[in-house]
Amino acid sequence: MLRFRLLSFSLSPISSSSSPVFKPHTRNRFLFLNKLSSQMGSYTTASESQLSGSKKLLFRQLFEKDSSTYTYLLADASHPDKPALLVDPVDKTADRDLSLVKELGLKLIYAINTHVHADHVTGTGLIKSKVPGVKSIISKASNAQADLLIEPGDKVYFGDLFLEVRATPGHTLGCVTYVTGDGPNQPQPRMAFTGDALLIRGCGRTDFQGGSSETLYKSVHTQIFTLPKDTLVYPAHDYKGFTVSTVGEEMKYNPRLTKDEAGFKGIMENLNLPYPKMLDVAVPANMLCGLQDVESKAN
Amino acid sequence: MLRFRLLSFSLSPISSSSSPVFKPHTRNRFLFLNKLSSQMGSYTTASESQLSGSKKLLFRQLFEKDSSTYTYLLADASHPDKPALLVDPVDKTADRDLSLVKELGLKLIYAINTHVHADHVTGTGLIKSKVPGVKSIISKASNAQADLLIEPGDKVYFGDLFLEVRATPGHTLGCVTYVTGDGPNQPQPRMAFTGDALLIRGCGRTDFQGGSSETLYKSVHTQIFTLPKDTLVYPAHDYKGFTVSTVGEEMKYNPRLTKDEAGFKGIMENLNLPYPKMLDVAVPANMLCGLQDVESKAN
Repeated sequence: MLRFRLLSFSLSPISSSSSPVFKPHTRNRFLFLNKLSSQMGSYTTASESQLSGSKKLLFRQLFEKDSSTYTYLLADASHPDKPALLVDPVDKTADRDLSLVKELGLKLIYAINTHVHADHVTGTGLIKSKVPGVKSIISKASNAQADLLIEPGDKVYFGDLFLEVRATPGHTLGCVTYVTGDGPNQPQPRMAFTGDALLIRGCGRTDFQGGSSETLYKSVHTQIFTLPKDTLVYPAHDYKGFTVSTVGEEMKYNPRLTKDEAGFKGIMENLNLPYPKMLDVAVPANMLCGLQDVESKAN
Repeated sequence: MLRFRLLSFSLSPISSSSSPVFKPHTRNRFLFLNKLSSQMGSYTTASESQLSGSKKLLFRQLFEKDSSTYTYLLADASHPDKPALLVDPVDKTADRDLSLVKELGLKLIYAINTHVHADHVTGTGLIKSKVPGVKSIISKASNAQADLLIEPGDKVYFGDLFLEVRATPGHTLGCVTYVTGDGPNQPQPRMAFTGDALLIRGCGRTDFQGGSSETLYKSVHTQIFTLPKDTLVYPAHDYKGFTVSTVGEEMKYNPRLTKDEAGFKGIMENLNLPYPKMLDVAVPANMLCGLQDVESKAN
């Protein structure tokens, strides 16, 4: 059943053709990687123009000020199509993001969410209405609607690069962390898009949407803190002006997640946070990837 | 006279000793570079832990929300002392920045400004009061006070890395752009900290502090747009959530600076911007690198 579900997304699993595809764990995927193993990959914050040879990841971090949300643009700039994806786009800044995609000459193929956000409406639906062919992605565990429902271990390919899916529930039931691929032709150091599971020197709250401090503690410790220490941590939000951290830094300095489980639970149970202003609007919209009102917005 | 002024900052011009030094254009500097030429340099947004071999620049972009100011932390993480500098620190976020410097195990040696800011008080004075030994840097042309007054062509060394100073007046009389070094042991692509001279898809206003649209146009076209197109542009501000651009992108898409000089002047003369709220407080303070009230803040 799993194989069937995944294979249904594989438009072109073997060739390095121009179609960016969502590739499953199959023998074909490994053949594909072997074909590319002579290419060196390295990490850079870069625009299309500067990427050549070993540097092929185009990466941009974008900020939405009202909800302090980070959206991430990633593209395989070495691929002829320059296939790109947006992680956690926001409805308010969808036009900005799409303008940038166009200026950089990219082909947007996916709009993906780390989870069903409670503090802003995702830009996914709006983007789909403006750019035909873009597919929305969210975790199956979120119970939200999207074109592709991903599960732990899945790989989301854009060109020759991919994001690996790790389940990191606790802030919500369906939170995932997307991690850039592990391999000689993938960006180094790796980059983890942690959503609200792990924030820089913090973490997402656990008091609604199926949140659980025990689950979050386990998720971060087993799924994120087990990544190489130099893995770059890119969260869905920051409220203090930080833009990036590393796994090693958070393992050492995160004021919540460096505690033992009981200490962490005690902190999370006593945050006394206000009811999220946007929750009643954002969650129902985001369960449909922001699609419920796309028609009125697009018209 | 120039040589004298510069040499007075050169504590250790030849050796690769542990003292981070401000190195002039002298024969010694080239000897120094030759010694290091076998080391490859490359750009990464990285923490100390992940830097080894060819990757030695530690870089962090930090944001101050009220004035939408970017502060940049750069360090030579391969150097035993991990010497670091902050570009355009803000008084409100000085403690955040210093905590990060400490956690990353860096030795802050310089707090440098691209210009006398009108929209926030620099953190330079406060940082100097909290971290003994840190030296403030600003351009001589700004007529402001600082420990080191730099001029075009000067190089600001931190460990084996350096920033090159380019005069980019027009927003203010004394604006400079700091550009990472050109050479095999320096970060690639280069990074330009443009202050308010060049913003992402914009530029600083030219209607006060000795501003001049003609001068700004010339500065950007002769000092920034002549850099390699893949040079990363890191401005002092962004109001739309962008974090980085490139010289090539701005040459192609900057809505003001892609115009001819007359067109640019017409745009700048018709911005009808309000009087800056912070100007009367910020400029007098920043002429003293924020030092005028450091004693009261520190006590």
